This record gives sequence, structure tokens and C-alpha cells, in this order.
Amino acid sequence: MGNKVVCLPRLPRVAVCGGTHGNELSGVYLVRELLKAEKKVMEKEEEEPLSVLMVLSNPRAMQQCRRYVDTDLNRCFTHAKLNGPIPDDAPYEIIRSRELNATLGPKGNPEAVDLVCDLHNTTANMGLCFIAYSDCDWICMHIFRHLQRQMPDVPMRYIHFDVSNKESYSLDSVGKHGFAMEIGPQPHGVVRSNIYTAMKVGVQHMLDWVRIFNSGTIFEGGCVDVFTMIKHIDYPRDSETRNITAAIHPQVQDRDFCLLHPEDPLFQTFSGETLRYKGNEPLYPFFINECAYYEKGIALSLARKRRVMIPAIRVQTEQQQQANKQEFASEEEE
Amino acid sequence: MGNKVVCLPRLPRVAVCGGTHGNELSGVYLVRELLKAEKKVMEKEEEEPLSVLMVLSNPRAMQQCRRYVDTDLNRCFTHAKLNGPIPDDAPYEIIRSRELNATLGPKGNPEAVDLVCDLHNTTANMGLCFIAYSDCDWICMHIFRHLQRQMPDVPMRYIHFDVSNKESYSLDSVGKHGFAMEIGPQPHGVVRSNIYTAMKVGVQHMLDWVRIFNSGTIFEGGCVDVFTMIKHIDYPRDSETRNITAAIHPQVQDRDFCLLHPEDPLFQTFSGETLRYKGNEPLYPFFINECAYYEKGIALSLARKRRVMIPAIRVQTEQQQQANKQEFASEEEE
Repeated sequence: MGNKVVCLPRLPRVAVCGGTHGNELSGVYLVRELLKAEKKVMEKEEEEPLSVLMVLSNPRAMQQCRRYVDTDLNRCFTHAKLNGPIPDDAPYEIIRSRELNATLGPKGNPEAVDLVCDLHNTTANMGLCFIAYSDCDWICMHIFRHLQRQMPDVPMRYIHFDVSNKESYSLDSVGKHGFAMEIGPQPHGVVRSNIYTAMKVGVQHMLDWVRIFNSGTIFEGGCVDVFTMIKHIDYPRDSETRNITAAIHPQVQDRDFCLLHPEDPLFQTFSGETLRYKGNEPLYPFFINECAYYEKGIALSLARKRRVMIPAIRVQTEQQQQANKQEFASEEEE
Repeated sequence: MGNKVVCLPRLPRVAVCGGTHGNELSGVYLVRELLKAEKKVMEKEEEEPLSVLMVLSNPRAMQQCRRYVDTDLNRCFTHAKLNGPIPDDAPYEIIRSRELNATLGPKGNPEAVDLVCDLHNTTANMGLCFIAYSDCDWICMHIFRHLQRQMPDVPMRYIHFDVSNKESYSLDSVGKHGFAMEIGPQPHGVVRSNIYTAMKVGVQHMLDWVRIFNSGTIFEGGCVDVFTMIKHIDYPRDSETRNITAAIHPQVQDRDFCLLHPEDPLFQTFSGETLRYKGNEPLYPFFINECAYYEKGIALSLARKRRVMIPAIRVQTEQQQQANKQEFASEEEE
């Protein structure tokens, strides 16, 4: 890459979504707060060159303070689910995912918003994480670096789920760029000031970065440590009842992103026995003891860490942008 | 009280209950584990002079990993609710509370089990708490002192809800003696090894104490710090939507049982403002930011601390017990 500056399209439309999981309260209260602030700005008729769309994704689940009503909304945004036939008695979240796709997408379409930032909480001690489907989306990765610099006291990691755009299932996959901002530890159904504030500050810096980017500033290249998800590990379970028979070992609990070596303690059974990690490669655990993943059969996930070099970037000039649009149009015609 | 030893009836039947709230998982998994252990003991036909009844209180809520299905089971054990007319479409927990009252009670009746220990978790940083309706139940208070001595590393408090036996609403009120063992912090729907282990060890020491008491050992008198609940404080709320507009202040979060003074920070609004405690007396906060109490309108509870002297106790002799029974019978006849 050297000193080459990569020119990328402007980001005129950004969506900030909360309540995709109705009991992850930092995002719910932050989006409500941003909506109030927006109302005040609109009353003053101030001009905002950046269009920021604030979305409460799953109002029914929020109302019941549950993750979801019928099915996990944040698994509904695959190409197949968004475009398949829809029965009359479709789950609420299937219907809602299409509404959101119509508002923010359509997914994979040039009409989609430029960036989706979807706000989440976890019971795991993960600090602030970006979760994205790409390890070469320079926009997401530059935003991540910006937040790292602006919020040095908050532990921050970039998690990469290596899944194609068609198979990507979460709300943030609807935008041209997108990531989940996942912050913990916070129990679901609870809002903690420190976690709420980290999310609020993170969103402010994200929006600031987009404004600075759109204004033409060059962002220097550098490197980002990327945690690529390798596999999930389930709890030990009773073969008959399928109930779990052990909890995360006290030496692993709250140690997200601390390297787990083969034969390290991993679980403690309810009778007191220690079970060890039987993998043959040291990996980084995350989402350790996440509440919502008991039902998904995930006690923790494991990642490999890699340093990724990212290039310097700046926004395309009007001319470049125009040329791109024409190129796109001619591709469409082919 | 001086050196007088108070003689109290034997405690031949103890109930240990978990899953009264279906998403408080330490108690759910501990009772399941105790049931397994009991099965093994029974297979060996070993003799246990103490009858320990293990109860999973709300199996339907457990199955859904929710606090309750229709209504909070742990508010259903008032005299009025247990004895009023019951409609055909009664909430599940109303029906279940009568089943439990039949098994463990009837409440207020000589047939009731001698001691109910009901296991709970909280998202608040409360350590291990006994919650009881009495500040002069020497059995509960001696058990508390025993656990304090046996588990010096676990922060432990005795909370007193000053409510009459008729108005007492929780499952533990069904026994002749009873208390809730409340341990946190643990998110609902999650089991953490450290919290599970503290509960397991606490229950073992409780049962040990009962066996030692029944065997005739004298327990010395002493003192217990009792936190008597004075009032609840709700979150600040929007007057129209009733949504909360602030979270617990970071200086108060996780500081359960640290004295709160008038004008101390109490809440932080979602726009960043600090709201202060407007009471006119320093009090001890507890259940700070408990997940399940958002819907009950409780952000935290406040207690006054008092040192209570408890007498030396021992179990009644056979003769005393016989005399008591006759006395009770003649009272019944009157």
C-alpha cells in the first residue's frame, strides 16, 4: 500500500440503531436520547450536512424488555430471509426485518444507507467491541482506530466474523458499511451509567469521524489488531435433559481476550470439578458467559488475532464520485 | 438476656428452594445438583436424621428462563392471596403458590416445615444477604452468624423487611422460620461460578448448623447488624412515557451498603446531569440497580442499620418439646 491514499465514496447517510435486542438497554436509552436531541436541533432549524437516522429496531421486544418476541431479529438479515416468501403468520421479527431493510437498505443496493452502527450490550466483560463481517472495510477500521485514540481508557477490540455478504445475518449488514458496537459487561434489562456513557461517547466520535471524513481530511494508514472468530464452544450438558452441568471456570470468567492455552481450566462443574480446554492451539476467548447465548449453545467464542495494515484514506472528489456513478450505471446495463 | 440460654424447638424439616424466580440461575442449578446428590445418598440407603426437602419452585418460569410466567410468584404468599377465592383462569403462579403452600406449609400452621431457605440472585453488588421478616428470629440470626464466621471472605448482611406474618408475601414466609438467601452480583439468565459456589457453601453451612443445633449444642449469644428497610426510591421518569430518564450514578453503582448522605450524587440523567439524594438522613442503599425492580419502580432501597443482641440458644429437650405440644394443643382447644 505504501503511501498511496485510497479514495472512498462520501458517507452522506448514517444510521444509528438501538433496541435490535429489546433488553440491551444502553442502545435503547441512547437512541431515545439522540432522538430528543435531534428534535431540539430541528426546532432550531440548524443545518446538518450529515443525515443521521436514529432507529429503534425492535419496539415490541423493547416494550417487553426481552431480546426478541418470536425470533432473534439480528439473525433475520440474510439475503435468503429478506427475499424469501413470507407467510401470513410470519414471526414478528421477520416482518420487522423487512421494514428495516426497506428503511435502511435494501441490503446490497446502491440506495442503502452508507453506514449502519447497531448498538448492543453483552453480559461478557468485553469492553467496547466493533463486530464486522470484513477485515478490509477501511471505513469501519478507520472509525475503530479513531475511537481507540479518542477513548484510551476504554478497552477496545475489532472482531471479525468471516461470513460472506449474502450469509451475513445482522442488521448492520444492510448498510454499505456497517458494524455492531458491542459494550459490556452490563446485565440485560439493566442500564449502567459507565457502559451507557462509553456508548454515547463512542457514537459521538463515530459521527465526528464521518463528518471529518466527508469534509476531505486525509486519515493516515496504520494497523489494527483483528480478532477473527474461529469457533464457538458450548457448555457441558446432561445428555438426557440438555441442561448445562458446569459454569465458566472462575479463572476464565471476565477474562475476555486473554489468551486461552490448551489444558487451561475452562469450566467448573456444578459438583466442583475443573474441566480443561482441549483445543490444540492457544486462542482468544470472547463472549464469555453471554446471557443470550445459553439458548444458542455458546459458552464462549474463540478468535485468532492478526495485525492488519490499513491504508491512508480520504473521501473521493466530486469528479471521482461522478465517474464512479457512471461506471456503476454502465455495469448495471451490462 | 444475660447468660440465659433460650431453648427452641427442634428443626427436623428444612426446605431449600431454587427457581422461585426462573431466571435466577444459581439457585436453579444448586437445587438440581442437590437433588442429584440426594438420589445418590438414597441409593446407598444412608440415614439422614434431618429431612431436607429440595424444591424447584417455578418450573414453567425456569423453562422459559424468565422471572415469572404470569405474575411474580414471590409476591403470592400473603395470607389473603393463599386463602382467597381462586378463579378458573387464575395466573399460573397463583395456582403454583397454593401447591407450594400445601407442600411446605400451610403457612402459619404447626404442620409447616421448620425452616425455608429460598435461593435468589440479584444484579446488585450485594454479596450474600439474608432477607427476613423478623429481627428477633433467633434461628435465622444464629444461622446468619454461623455463615459469617465460616465464610469470612464473603461480604454478608442481614436485611429485615418489617412486615407482619400475615402481610409477608414471599415463599420463605411459609415455613416456621424462613429467609431468602440473596446473592449477587449475577446477571439474571447467567450463572457465575463464584456466585454459585458462595451459594452452595452457604447452603452447606446452613444445613450443618441445623444438624449441630438439633444435636443439642449450645450456641453463644452475640450481636448481629440488622439493615431494616425504610423506603424504596424510583428512577426519575418522563412524565408522559414513564420511561426512565436517568441511570444510577457511577459513584453509587455497586456501592450497596455504603452509607448514602443527603446531597450525595444518586442518578446520572441520560443527558449527563447529576441528580442528588434529597433525603434528610444518611441511609444504607441496597438492591442498587436490580434488574427485576425496574418494573416495580425501585431503583434502590434504603435501610437503617441497628445492632441487635441475640441470646444463646439450644434445642429444647424431649420433655420441653412434649410440654410445648400439650400447651399448643390446649390452646387450640380453647
